[in-house]
Amino acid sequence: MKDTGKTGDISSMDEYDVLRIMKMRIVESYRWKLDIVKPISKELEISEEQLEEILIKRLDMASLEALHPRYESSQHYCIKEKLHSDLRLCWLCDVMNILSKEEAETIKNKIASEILTKGKSYQEAMEDGRKDLLEYLMR
Amino acid sequence: MKDTGKTGDISSMDEYDVLRIMKMRIVESYRWKLDIVKPISKELEISEEQLEEILIKRLDMASLEALHPRYESSQHYCIKEKLHSDLRLCWLCDVMNILSKEEAETIKNKIASEILTKGKSYQEAMEDGRKDLLEYLMR
Repeated sequence: MKDTGKTGDISSMDEYDVLRIMKMRIVESYRWKLDIVKPISKELEISEEQLEEILIKRLDMASLEALHPRYESSQHYCIKEKLHSDLRLCWLCDVMNILSKEEAETIKNKIASEILTKGKSYQEAMEDGRKDLLEYLMR
Repeated sequence: MKDTGKTGDISSMDEYDVLRIMKMRIVESYRWKLDIVKPISKELEISEEQLEEILIKRLDMASLEALHPRYESSQHYCIKEKLHSDLRLCWLCDVMNILSKEEAETIKNKIASEILTKGKSYQEAMEDGRKDLLEYLMR
């Protein structure tokens, strides 16, 4: 399993190879594949192999090891950021002020928890949330 | 053009009516229709009339008058927020750190200016931006 990549400028190939193998073991592990490599490569429309290459090239061992728990715990935050965009809260809340920050937070937290704890799909939860949003607006 | 809405609890109907007519004149003006009412109602999947009702109910005269210029000047900011979400920069940049904040800003600013100054569609500019993003990642 020798890496023969375009790395002529790296002085100790052996050390580089070992590091590469260690990194590959992390990103090719079952949980990594399932939780990170598959979904993110799909969203970026690149192959799983390409994403793995990017990860092992751009991150050191410590960052790679820390990434899975970090990714898990950031799910709530990133889903809420995506909702902010998909529900057009930048316009409605930040710019127009026709929805308060608190109302927006309530709606986003509810949707995010339905996705993360009740297993609803993002699309379904977001569509339900859009109804809540309109109810708030119509009040 | 008397408003006979469900407003029995408003003491002076005349004053309310006048205010309502003044507000309607703003939101029904040509620029408002074109720049705000049409696109936002479409994005929220509600009718233009529903959005107009929400706006005149939720905003006072001063806020309504300030909204169009405010909306215009926030376009760049909101497009960049949407790009942050659509290009998954929450994961790539904020969580994974495989793209730096500066690289992300460069990519988003380029796309936003192509939309706002060169008239590219959001979708087209975003797809081109995704290619730039992958180039950055592959370096």
